[in-house]
Amino acid sequence: MEKKKLHRHVAGLPPGTLRYVGEAKQGPVLLSVIDYNEEHVTERNGVDIQETYDYKENGRISWINIDGVHDVKVIKTLGLYFNIHPLLQEDIADTDQRPKAEFYEDVAFVVLHMLSYDRAKSSIEREQVSLVLGDGFLLSFQEDKAGDVFEPVRERIRKKARGKLRNLDTAYLFYVLMDTIVDNYLIVLENVVEDLERLEEKIIKDELGGDMTRPLYEQKQELVKVRKAVRPLRDIVSQLIREESTFLDGHKVYLRDLYDHVVQVIDNTESYIDTCNSLLDMYLSIIGNRTNDVMKVLTILSTIFLPLTFIVGVYGMNFDHMPELHTPYGYLGVWALMILVSGGIYGYFRRKRWI
Amino acid sequence: MEKKKLHRHVAGLPPGTLRYVGEAKQGPVLLSVIDYNEEHVTERNGVDIQETYDYKENGRISWINIDGVHDVKVIKTLGLYFNIHPLLQEDIADTDQRPKAEFYEDVAFVVLHMLSYDRAKSSIEREQVSLVLGDGFLLSFQEDKAGDVFEPVRERIRKKARGKLRNLDTAYLFYVLMDTIVDNYLIVLENVVEDLERLEEKIIKDELGGDMTRPLYEQKQELVKVRKAVRPLRDIVSQLIREESTFLDGHKVYLRDLYDHVVQVIDNTESYIDTCNSLLDMYLSIIGNRTNDVMKVLTILSTIFLPLTFIVGVYGMNFDHMPELHTPYGYLGVWALMILVSGGIYGYFRRKRWI
Amino acid sequence: MEKKKLHRHVAGLPPGTLRYVGEAKQGPVLLSVIDYNEEHVTERNGVDIQETYDYKENGRISWINIDGVHDVKVIKTLGLYFNIHPLLQEDIADTDQRPKAEFYEDVAFVVLHMLSYDRAKSSIEREQVSLVLGDGFLLSFQEDKAGDVFEPVRERIRKKARGKLRNLDTAYLFYVLMDTIVDNYLIVLENVVEDLERLEEKIIKDELGGDMTRPLYEQKQELVKVRKAVRPLRDIVSQLIREESTFLDGHKVYLRDLYDHVVQVIDNTESYIDTCNSLLDMYLSIIGNRTNDVMKVLTILSTIFLPLTFIVGVYGMNFDHMPELHTPYGYLGVWALMILVSGGIYGYFRRKRWI
Amino acid sequence: MEKKKLHRHVAGLPPGTLRYVGEAKQGPVLLSVIDYNEEHVTERNGVDIQETYDYKENGRISWINIDGVHDVKVIKTLGLYFNIHPLLQEDIADTDQRPKAEFYEDVAFVVLHMLSYDRAKSSIEREQVSLVLGDGFLLSFQEDKAGDVFEPVRERIRKKARGKLRNLDTAYLFYVLMDTIVDNYLIVLENVVEDLERLEEKIIKDELGGDMTRPLYEQKQELVKVRKAVRPLRDIVSQLIREESTFLDGHKVYLRDLYDHVVQVIDNTESYIDTCNSLLDMYLSIIGNRTNDVMKVLTILSTIFLPLTFIVGVYGMNFDHMPELHTPYGYLGVWALMILVSGGIYGYFRRKRWI
Amino acid sequence: MEKKKLHRHVAGLPPGTLRYVGEAKQGPVLLSVIDYNEEHVTERNGVDIQETYDYKENGRISWINIDGVHDVKVIKTLGLYFNIHPLLQEDIADTDQRPKAEFYEDVAFVVLHMLSYDRAKSSIEREQVSLVLGDGFLLSFQEDKAGDVFEPVRERIRKKARGKLRNLDTAYLFYVLMDTIVDNYLIVLENVVEDLERLEEKIIKDELGGDMTRPLYEQKQELVKVRKAVRPLRDIVSQLIREESTFLDGHKVYLRDLYDHVVQVIDNTESYIDTCNSLLDMYLSIIGNRTNDVMKVLTILSTIFLPLTFIVGVYGMNFDHMPELHTPYGYLGVWALMILVSGGIYGYFRRKRWI
Repeated sequence: MEKKKLHRHVAGLPPGTLRYVGEAKQGPVLLSVIDYNEEHVTERNGVDIQETYDYKENGRISWINIDGVHDVKVIKTLGLYFNIHPLLQEDIADTDQRPKAEFYEDVAFVVLHMLSYDRAKSSIEREQVSLVLGDGFLLSFQEDKAGDVFEPVRERIRKKARGKLRNLDTAYLFYVLMDTIVDNYLIVLENVVEDLERLEEKIIKDELGGDMTRPLYEQKQELVKVRKAVRPLRDIVSQLIREESTFLDGHKVYLRDLYDHVVQVIDNTESYIDTCNSLLDMYLSIIGNRTNDVMKVLTILSTIFLPLTFIVGVYGMNFDHMPELHTPYGYLGVWALMILVSGGIYGYFRRKRWI
Repeated sequence: MEKKKLHRHVAGLPPGTLRYVGEAKQGPVLLSVIDYNEEHVTERNGVDIQETYDYKENGRISWINIDGVHDVKVIKTLGLYFNIHPLLQEDIADTDQRPKAEFYEDVAFVVLHMLSYDRAKSSIEREQVSLVLGDGFLLSFQEDKAGDVFEPVRERIRKKARGKLRNLDTAYLFYVLMDTIVDNYLIVLENVVEDLERLEEKIIKDELGGDMTRPLYEQKQELVKVRKAVRPLRDIVSQLIREESTFLDGHKVYLRDLYDHVVQVIDNTESYIDTCNSLLDMYLSIIGNRTNDVMKVLTILSTIFLPLTFIVGVYGMNFDHMPELHTPYGYLGVWALMILVSGGIYGYFRRKRWI
Repeated sequence: MEKKKLHRHVAGLPPGTLRYVGEAKQGPVLLSVIDYNEEHVTERNGVDIQETYDYKENGRISWINIDGVHDVKVIKTLGLYFNIHPLLQEDIADTDQRPKAEFYEDVAFVVLHMLSYDRAKSSIEREQVSLVLGDGFLLSFQEDKAGDVFEPVRERIRKKARGKLRNLDTAYLFYVLMDTIVDNYLIVLENVVEDLERLEEKIIKDELGGDMTRPLYEQKQELVKVRKAVRPLRDIVSQLIREESTFLDGHKVYLRDLYDHVVQVIDNTESYIDTCNSLLDMYLSIIGNRTNDVMKVLTILSTIFLPLTFIVGVYGMNFDHMPELHTPYGYLGVWALMILVSGGIYGYFRRKRWI
Repeated sequence: MEKKKLHRHVAGLPPGTLRYVGEAKQGPVLLSVIDYNEEHVTERNGVDIQETYDYKENGRISWINIDGVHDVKVIKTLGLYFNIHPLLQEDIADTDQRPKAEFYEDVAFVVLHMLSYDRAKSSIEREQVSLVLGDGFLLSFQEDKAGDVFEPVRERIRKKARGKLRNLDTAYLFYVLMDTIVDNYLIVLENVVEDLERLEEKIIKDELGGDMTRPLYEQKQELVKVRKAVRPLRDIVSQLIREESTFLDGHKVYLRDLYDHVVQVIDNTESYIDTCNSLLDMYLSIIGNRTNDVMKVLTILSTIFLPLTFIVGVYGMNFDHMPELHTPYGYLGVWALMILVSGGIYGYFRRKRWI
Repeated sequence: MEKKKLHRHVAGLPPGTLRYVGEAKQGPVLLSVIDYNEEHVTERNGVDIQETYDYKENGRISWINIDGVHDVKVIKTLGLYFNIHPLLQEDIADTDQRPKAEFYEDVAFVVLHMLSYDRAKSSIEREQVSLVLGDGFLLSFQEDKAGDVFEPVRERIRKKARGKLRNLDTAYLFYVLMDTIVDNYLIVLENVVEDLERLEEKIIKDELGGDMTRPLYEQKQELVKVRKAVRPLRDIVSQLIREESTFLDGHKVYLRDLYDHVVQVIDNTESYIDTCNSLLDMYLSIIGNRTNDVMKVLTILSTIFLPLTFIVGVYGMNFDHMPELHTPYGYLGVWALMILVSGGIYGYFRRKRWI
């Protein structure tokens, strides 16, 4: 089960109260800006918070990335500069937010979950990303846990070579970032599925070294995590498509494509979860079969040797008057009897098709 | 299973008949009033029921809290003063009401379930809260079972310091109370999930001291209780959002935020219930595996010792003519035979990969 | 499983053919009339069928109750008098009708299932009730199996004291009858749930005297019966709410309240069925655990005594040359060996945490 | 599983290509005509295909029944005469068609599955019926497998006595035929359910002679067959109700009644399938319980006799120096020991409540 | 589980970037053209990519088939010639595309999965087919894995004999290709179901040679594969039906027929998956029953022989003073005792109905 960082709220706080609810974290928040239009690109890291205001209406496309959402003051200041509603500020700081989209007069707001696969732990890490799209600026808030999935996008902006990113507006950048995150789900899924395929092969080939239940359970929990991150995205993207927004109007084609990708990720995740369940069912039935086999061996053996042991016990008794003991062919007779008995039992099992 | 306080109706009573259906309870009903506007706050506890009428149209925001719904007369009188429809009065008194929202000409009415986690009993207590929102007044009816979850809200009204609660109207207070209750669900969920995580860890680490089925079942029943309280809220809040009401029109932004919280609580609850089911499945399969292991040990052992015991039984027989008994190497020969037989059986199990 | 009184149709009969499909029943059909307005009430039992026509347009509210639907002629005559469509007549006579609502020009028609709990048999009895609402008259058709759930309503009409039943129109009476039936579901549910709670307690406290599967199965079948009766009501009542009918227009508030009750009954029934399923799962897993425990005892015991019995068997052999038998400490040595062996096995089980 | 007569298509054939896909069948196709209006009825069997054309626009209601759809030429000729679209012709010949309704300019087209219960084989036979409703004519195509379910309808036309069939138009005949088929489902269901009740009784009364799994499985497959035939009918009939067709406009009341019947059949079928599943669950748990009981007997017995057998084995050893053997009360002492041991074990099981 | 060829994306690439994501493949891409109208057909294989442009607006129907989508340059060039949007080009190259339909100004675009049954491996192969329908041309992109399912369509174009393919427009060809693919699903399903029927028969007739779980699991995975390919088609075809497109307007009748086929395939697939699940349940319960039978044999036998072996053990003891040993009828008495004991046990099992 996902170790939940549940709201450690004091219920009753005013809405819009900023509460960072993730794991306690410290250190400075890192701001970096890429400011570009078709001709120029400026890139700066470690920007001062006061400087960001200058980028708001400079006529170029300004992408301000904020690494770390644990410093409430930073979010508040940016909220003031870029006109972000207090409720949205709360959503940014609350890293247990369910993915959602929100539209205010002059900004579009999206919360997403970015996933990354930690190969060492065979588990999926989740990080919340909030995107604030305004007129001429785009703010991206990340927790600073996982690696930077946006680096290739930056590279594309720098190089201008590939695609039309440099020629288009902020909303297109907004779309590109979401697309990058969704593409990333597929990569994560790929990793999970490789683990799943290994398990499947083991179970089908009957190489059951140890209990398969726990890895299957954990596999499924990972997939449930992916589903939880992706499922709300379907509504979000279709909301973006339906939204009558001047920002997004020119990019509906791309959003529909994004929507198809999201549906594909959801479909795949669902079907892998199904596969997990089917595998567990199969595994249970294999175990049942195996217990059955073990029981048969035990039963056959007992059924043969219990009567024999009884027979030899009889002639181990010390009664004074046991005439069989003194006949010359008594011993041979007992052997004959025992062979007869075991032969009969063997025949019985044959008929029952147990052997 | 939730000990249901089911309708102990006499079916056929006129609708709008007030029937308190909770556990029998006595003692006076406690009324308290907070009356405020931007400048002043008056707070009074133990208000007389006749006095409440004065607060109805005094131009300030009057929040009247009623602790105890078992006194039908109180509800009736308030119903008269504040123009509450008899059907709503019935809903207030009936503490088994399903959460719902109702709109009459001049009041908005909401029934909610407040949950609290009783750490001693590891179980969730439910209490019904009814909110009646009118023009300039808000009535909140509580059973007086659990602690007071609204205290922090009162504190905010008194202090004026944080948030804009004092500056805004009754509908905002209405929203804040609902938000407080929903935030409280997350706290309750947090507690339940901690118990669940402890169970999960035990099962995964295989520290199965005793039966895990019953705690898992009880855990799930608790979660089902939460789901039952929260699920109707989705419809209620979206009804409030859609409602063309002069009260609520200015607060749609907050209601949408509340809606997102409700959906998040529902999502989390559903996924914890799923986890319960998966854990139970895993646990069942672990038990199946274990039975299998036990059977194997038994079978291997029997398979080895049954033949051996038979052999020694043979040479314990007292026949007069058993030539083997009198050969000098008979005893050693029997040992050799027995080692051979057990070796063969061992080899068989090896090949079957049981050992 | 509900003993179905399935359509014993001869397929191909003309639609609207009256066929009583319940259990064969005889005896006269009992008609009774309550005729009232705000000032007067007349009540008559055993009314002649010809007399009913006079009540149709006498300006007062006439509630004609028909006990018994097995006499097709009675239904036909009433159908003629009160203008009931042949298809509706068929529905009245066919006591396996699914609950439904139908609107014709001048009548509203509803078929419901009334439930009653037979405490002796711990089972639920079902009876079909058809209500025909016209302008100034209401016909209620009952099978005459269970007790009369409508008696309290009659009492309210007679006494005039409580509620506004006497002051309002036929449609309000129509609503009150439906409300009475739905309230009755809650009473039935209460009884079923008490049985269920007793089962739950037994299973949780592990007082499993005998097989729990069958009572759980029967409990669930009873609940399924309730669900089958109630589920169609949701559609029916919401159809009544949506219907643009002059009859019902003034009573939408009450119908919405009825709708909430119906949803509550459905919700509760569903959740009790879920509880049944969870209990069965828990019970299965408890049994699995128990088998496991039994197996362990058997295995531990066999594992200890099989080797010991083998050892003593060895020294029960009658070979001439068994040097161990003649050493002075042979017997003690064997005991030492046996203690060693059982100690080792005990240690093995300890380590495996089976003991 | 239903022995599927799956499309043995050569994929890529032009749509509208007539392919009879049922089991190979030969012999002539039988055409019969009932031609009637309010005054006259003419009935002819074995009509020549060329003659059918005369019935098309003769001003009376002409019901042409075709027994056998394996002769593609017949369908083609009729298609030409009565203006049936090639795609519909394909649907008529393809006896694996999913039930569906289709509206072309001048014909309404419906494919249904007729079911009949074969009591000898305890299984359900399926036959496809296609109805083509035009202005003044109705064509019914049947495979000629099962008995004739339409005979009672013919009888009603002949006799004129009951119902208004003779007085009304072709669309009413169309409705009557569908109603007959749906009524027939209830009869089939009745037969299946009788089998199911017999199984249920056996399982509840614990008269488990032999394996119950297979009959339960087969029962369920039969019910699934019914569901598969009925489920598409809901959409079809509601499509007929919604359709703005001059044919059907006067008969909406009857179609709504038919719709209710269809929903009832679906509801019942679903709930019987549920019952099958519950029965299987119960049966599984009964078996589990039983295995548990068997294990207990074995374990108790082994636990008592293994130690005893060990003890007597000890004193069967042939050591020279076994002092116990030579004491006068040794034998009695051993008996005392054995009684003590078995008493202790008995007490242990008592305490564990196994006995 | 389907060996996924998951997106091996580098997330963050610009959308519309062509990435072939299938298995690495080489060799030239094969282009072939059929160019026809009512009078003439020209057919050419191995067409040069530059030549295709001439077919775009030549006034005839030009069907260009591309075998192989691994060469990105080919797709790009054709995209340029035929005005295919970069996002669609990406979809063509990405062979893990979920089936979908897309409408741009002048082209309709559909991605489908073609299935083929590999009888040797008893498994289903999937191949992606993309169709681009423009004014006067139709492009079909195939991976070149499986055999050519479109050959019969080509034959129909060549021969002109059957159907109206030659007389109608490109959109009709578009429909015919989709119909061919859907028909092909039925053939694939037929093969899978034959395997399933064989399994079912084995299980019902109890010819359980070896474990049935794995083949059932694999069967189900194959069916899941079919479902995954077909399910999105329902939306796609209904989208084509709803689309207000000049291309498709004349062919709605055919598309509705196609829709019915798709629904039929989905229905059948779902019901076969259900059958798989039911079979697995039945199989599990048969195994449970069988284990029970095996246990009974073991228990009965042990219960008879353990006491007997104990008794004979008693009289094998070597005590000096065992009076029974020296009575003349001791031996016979022991036999009498043993017969009595086994008779009693036999009677006990009879009463318990185990024998």
